[in-house]
Amino acid sequence: MSDHDSPPLNAAVIGAGYWGPNLARNLATAPDWNLVAVCDLDGDRAAKVARGSGGADVETSVDRLLARDDVDAVAIATPARTHHPIAMAALRAGKHVVVEKPLADTGERAAEMVQVASDQGLVLMTDHTYCYTPAVLKIAELVAEGALGDILFVDSIRINLGLVQPDVDVLWDLAPHDLSILDAVLPGGLRPVGVSAHGADPLGAGKACLAYLSMPLENGGMAHVHVNWLSPTKIRQMVIGGSRRTLVWDDLNPQQRLSVYDRGVDLGQTAAAGADRAAATISYRLGDTWSPALPETEALGLMVGEFAASIRESRAPRTDGTAGLRVLGVLEAASASLAAGGMFTSTAAVGTHTEVLA
Amino acid sequence: MSDHDSPPLNAAVIGAGYWGPNLARNLATAPDWNLVAVCDLDGDRAAKVARGSGGADVETSVDRLLARDDVDAVAIATPARTHHPIAMAALRAGKHVVVEKPLADTGERAAEMVQVASDQGLVLMTDHTYCYTPAVLKIAELVAEGALGDILFVDSIRINLGLVQPDVDVLWDLAPHDLSILDAVLPGGLRPVGVSAHGADPLGAGKACLAYLSMPLENGGMAHVHVNWLSPTKIRQMVIGGSRRTLVWDDLNPQQRLSVYDRGVDLGQTAAAGADRAAATISYRLGDTWSPALPETEALGLMVGEFAASIRESRAPRTDGTAGLRVLGVLEAASASLAAGGMFTSTAAVGTHTEVLA
Amino acid sequence: MSDHDSPPLNAAVIGAGYWGPNLARNLATAPDWNLVAVCDLDGDRAAKVARGSGGADVETSVDRLLARDDVDAVAIATPARTHHPIAMAALRAGKHVVVEKPLADTGERAAEMVQVASDQGLVLMTDHTYCYTPAVLKIAELVAEGALGDILFVDSIRINLGLVQPDVDVLWDLAPHDLSILDAVLPGGLRPVGVSAHGADPLGAGKACLAYLSMPLENGGMAHVHVNWLSPTKIRQMVIGGSRRTLVWDDLNPQQRLSVYDRGVDLGQTAAAGADRAAATISYRLGDTWSPALPETEALGLMVGEFAASIRESRAPRTDGTAGLRVLGVLEAASASLAAGGMFTSTAAVGTHTEVLA
Amino acid sequence: MSDHDSPPLNAAVIGAGYWGPNLARNLATAPDWNLVAVCDLDGDRAAKVARGSGGADVETSVDRLLARDDVDAVAIATPARTHHPIAMAALRAGKHVVVEKPLADTGERAAEMVQVASDQGLVLMTDHTYCYTPAVLKIAELVAEGALGDILFVDSIRINLGLVQPDVDVLWDLAPHDLSILDAVLPGGLRPVGVSAHGADPLGAGKACLAYLSMPLENGGMAHVHVNWLSPTKIRQMVIGGSRRTLVWDDLNPQQRLSVYDRGVDLGQTAAAGADRAAATISYRLGDTWSPALPETEALGLMVGEFAASIRESRAPRTDGTAGLRVLGVLEAASASLAAGGMFTSTAAVGTHTEVLA
Repeated sequence: MSDHDSPPLNAAVIGAGYWGPNLARNLATAPDWNLVAVCDLDGDRAAKVARGSGGADVETSVDRLLARDDVDAVAIATPARTHHPIAMAALRAGKHVVVEKPLADTGERAAEMVQVASDQGLVLMTDHTYCYTPAVLKIAELVAEGALGDILFVDSIRINLGLVQPDVDVLWDLAPHDLSILDAVLPGGLRPVGVSAHGADPLGAGKACLAYLSMPLENGGMAHVHVNWLSPTKIRQMVIGGSRRTLVWDDLNPQQRLSVYDRGVDLGQTAAAGADRAAATISYRLGDTWSPALPETEALGLMVGEFAASIRESRAPRTDGTAGLRVLGVLEAASASLAAGGMFTSTAAVGTHTEVLA
Repeated sequence: MSDHDSPPLNAAVIGAGYWGPNLARNLATAPDWNLVAVCDLDGDRAAKVARGSGGADVETSVDRLLARDDVDAVAIATPARTHHPIAMAALRAGKHVVVEKPLADTGERAAEMVQVASDQGLVLMTDHTYCYTPAVLKIAELVAEGALGDILFVDSIRINLGLVQPDVDVLWDLAPHDLSILDAVLPGGLRPVGVSAHGADPLGAGKACLAYLSMPLENGGMAHVHVNWLSPTKIRQMVIGGSRRTLVWDDLNPQQRLSVYDRGVDLGQTAAAGADRAAATISYRLGDTWSPALPETEALGLMVGEFAASIRESRAPRTDGTAGLRVLGVLEAASASLAAGGMFTSTAAVGTHTEVLA
Repeated sequence: MSDHDSPPLNAAVIGAGYWGPNLARNLATAPDWNLVAVCDLDGDRAAKVARGSGGADVETSVDRLLARDDVDAVAIATPARTHHPIAMAALRAGKHVVVEKPLADTGERAAEMVQVASDQGLVLMTDHTYCYTPAVLKIAELVAEGALGDILFVDSIRINLGLVQPDVDVLWDLAPHDLSILDAVLPGGLRPVGVSAHGADPLGAGKACLAYLSMPLENGGMAHVHVNWLSPTKIRQMVIGGSRRTLVWDDLNPQQRLSVYDRGVDLGQTAAAGADRAAATISYRLGDTWSPALPETEALGLMVGEFAASIRESRAPRTDGTAGLRVLGVLEAASASLAAGGMFTSTAAVGTHTEVLA
Repeated sequence: MSDHDSPPLNAAVIGAGYWGPNLARNLATAPDWNLVAVCDLDGDRAAKVARGSGGADVETSVDRLLARDDVDAVAIATPARTHHPIAMAALRAGKHVVVEKPLADTGERAAEMVQVASDQGLVLMTDHTYCYTPAVLKIAELVAEGALGDILFVDSIRINLGLVQPDVDVLWDLAPHDLSILDAVLPGGLRPVGVSAHGADPLGAGKACLAYLSMPLENGGMAHVHVNWLSPTKIRQMVIGGSRRTLVWDDLNPQQRLSVYDRGVDLGQTAAAGADRAAATISYRLGDTWSPALPETEALGLMVGEFAASIRESRAPRTDGTAGLRVLGVLEAASASLAAGGMFTSTAAVGTHTEVLA
């Protein structure tokens, strides 16, 4: 994804807490990037990250950072509620922006960020890191080339004995992973007709500790997500059922992460006019199974490469701002549904993939 | 469960199609039973089953069968829509009755059967065969003795590449198994507050080919069932999360069907008055796992034994008529919810365990 | 494998004990065969099998049976020590013969049977039933077409908590399966340079309860078999490592019995003369995995079909007499090695595939 | 294992290559130890490790290091052929010594090291790191307390697609792990009667790429090890069959690493005098399975803690010098057997656990 004839772009990382150091390390070592600064209100923390990343400048003021001419782009890894103001300032200062997920704390603010980036002709990217893992990239490729046919259903399970979080419920803690992956692999992104969310708080923790999302798709299919903090066993599995083949992704089986099954049900067409459903011929395929080899690459390295490439090519990146917006839209609808006892909640018109014009 | 001092009871099987021969074989070989007759409109079919079961009489008229004095009980394995009239006639003729699932074609008719059996002081049993497997009996025992603590959630998955049935959707084809098992293991039986059912027919088969049932429980917990005809892999798994331990039943792993995990999340109580939720202490147990050995016994043999024992002891059997009624009630509510786009549907007051008085 | 233009051949089964009824049932239902008689010293037992197979004649004398003109072939399922005399009599009476494994109680007698069959131009077949399962047939096909390349190693494991047999040790109880399968899939059959067998009787049962066979192959490769009656878990697994691909057969995983891995180590050739080993380039392939679909067919049905086809086509069947002879030769060498504390024991020149000339 | 009332001991690490940094890091952070120096001929390499471990001195001469009074103990992580001279010098200088495995390049030299340490009253320890993992510690505890009964057999498999090493064969690359673990868990350590090793080099790599070790135990049992560089799948499994229970360790299954099966074969004793084997009653246990929870602790941290404790308590450590000597003895016998075509080779009298007297 890199273009080695061009000089590297200059990046700064804002936020030196949990995720910032990972961004800094990857930006510092990527051929496409120079890491020029690390910014945090806590100068010592920023200095430590800068030192560990080969000696970038330390900044303790976002304003001063954004005023620098030698910064092409910023990576924001601050608390979610500050994503919007910092990203807006950066965009207005003419910087390309990548934001740790969630893109913003509300869909409305995220939409504003997308709009401003579009107006300014700048890249706005969501750091959906999982979407750059070899498994998800391969799934997206298989779906895009039609290897699975039409997507009939997706069933995603992400359960384990997890830390009950102080500030978010299981939905906001775990489901963003599933939803961002769905957004990356479904043709056209994650655009369910709506969502019904059912949850439970059987321990009295004050928030849902397990939840189920049912999301009817426009083509009559269904996506479903099960997230659970109370499971004694750990499962990370996604089944993507297609009209041609069905894929199973078992992320905890390093020896066979992806399996593509040439098995399924075929509903034949009956030639006779007026033939009813009952006359449709049903047949079963029981073909081979295929497990593609996956390269060993670090997802975050590919993410920062894609960020650089999208800036250079003046195009929307994979996991652009609208991707983050769609995920937020579904999460907000799911929360509303959960609060309303599982009532079906439509996902308001959320963004479409933007074109970035230089 | 048998009392070898008593003489065997006399049974007849009505219906010699798919399931009747299994009932006949088990009644013919059980120490508690004599199989005295096999009844089917198709005399040849009845004769074949009678021969294979050691020579019972052949009857081609239900009326004549029920008029016989030497028949204590009948096992009904006819099409579902005929369960009600045949069972009602049998009960009115003073016979104890066991009915292949579903108990009746509607909950209303099932309720009438339960009422009449109760009025007559006769045993009415539903043949929920799965509930007599060693795994389910052990689960029920563990729940009853408190080994799991309070039930916080149940997640049941029953998926495989299955035959698209001509007359029923995936809900009525597969979910009765999960629901009857839930009824057998949950304290007090399956009595959810209601049910939301989400399904899809992505192939255009004219009926749901995959479905999800969310069933909030009275104690704040949740039961959830996933049934699917389109999965390339076969899964039969139920997780029962309890406040003390969590059980995983993997029915396709004969080497370790049941696993009981002493792992979980504990929410401590804070002593100070006015302490809010946030102050509650959360701790995690990561204890041993235990997999109980299971005997190798045939479920249907235990079922007919329980039928005999309940008659002799003038008590309700496991999987009595009210169990069948509760399962039907949830299925009907689920169908209504499915038709209404997943709308939460309460399960009307369904039967409680009856006492049979001789 | 059948030729439906030819009239069926006439078969008789000799021995109505454990295995005879299976042979009778398959011969009775195969399009290539008429089952004309069942023979056993115990006439009642023979009659019961004959009745269950659609009404063949009952014979209680092998001599009278072999004197019948309407018997083309016999299937022998009597105790192992009687295989030789009965088969010799049948061959001398001009009948084609299939014998339940082992072909005879000693290699010497088996060799005599092979010789006589060859002299008479008759088919002599060993009923290595496992070799007709869909999995083994597919493995043999893959090896034969070169999909695996040269066979570098085979590792076979057959362990479970097994019945300690009164008359044989674990080697003779379980290893015949592995060895007959190896014979069916290795190019040219099972012809190790020799065998070292290590066993143990840690319970003091009077015979080996676990054993390991190491069998160097002529090409520098190695076949190894582990059989064990004392394992708490059941494993049936064979790994066949080839220079091009490696196959894993997990017979207890019905969802993925065969996996073909395009992974391996490649040793490159160095062009320079005098280049030593250390200069050889080593590279690794980490390619895709492929799991071929397998049909659902009954092995014994295919076996009797192959028996008929080999007679009609005047050719040696798969699992002919020499296959049985090779397996016996390795078992005898293994027993000798076991008795000598694991001493390497060569497998004497055992038979080559015979041609049957009509 | 630490005694926080005593002042820390002073350690130096010799060798700053692959393993030395891990030893340095653990010694630097252990409460029982001060890391006072890192020694390597390459001063830059030593300096880098010293810096990364909180600022120990840098030494480039072993002699100067051993002359220091402030060094109580050394950890040697240099190439195997230098273990003997460095350890001997250190022992003669009065330092306690821990040596990366293998203890020495020959059993003879290892025996000399053990003798000198014993004469000097110093601790000599082998860094068999694997023996300090939670799984191996638990297994050793279960065996020691008799939970498994007498050890009847051990079957260990360590296979994967591995790097063909330039200097050692698969036996010396992988089997030391299995043998050191066997030494840690078998009562009295690894003391087989002898060993037969069978190997193959089917690629022509100039050394064995797969090997099998059969090791009869004194009690009539058997230990067996399978190591293989050519397997497409990765397996790390050890089965330890006991007269009371059988343990399976699957190191690649983090959700259930250890399983203890209460299943087995029991050979009853017949009371009657003159009763022969055939009369012995055989019965089968099919009891529960139990999987003990394991703590999450770093093995190397426990190893350096045990090193300190053994020095303080003037006792032999777990994995003392004689343990390293026994493992070397079996490896040397296995190599001799391999060279002799699998000939049974006795393991010469190897060391017994020493007592360290201050």
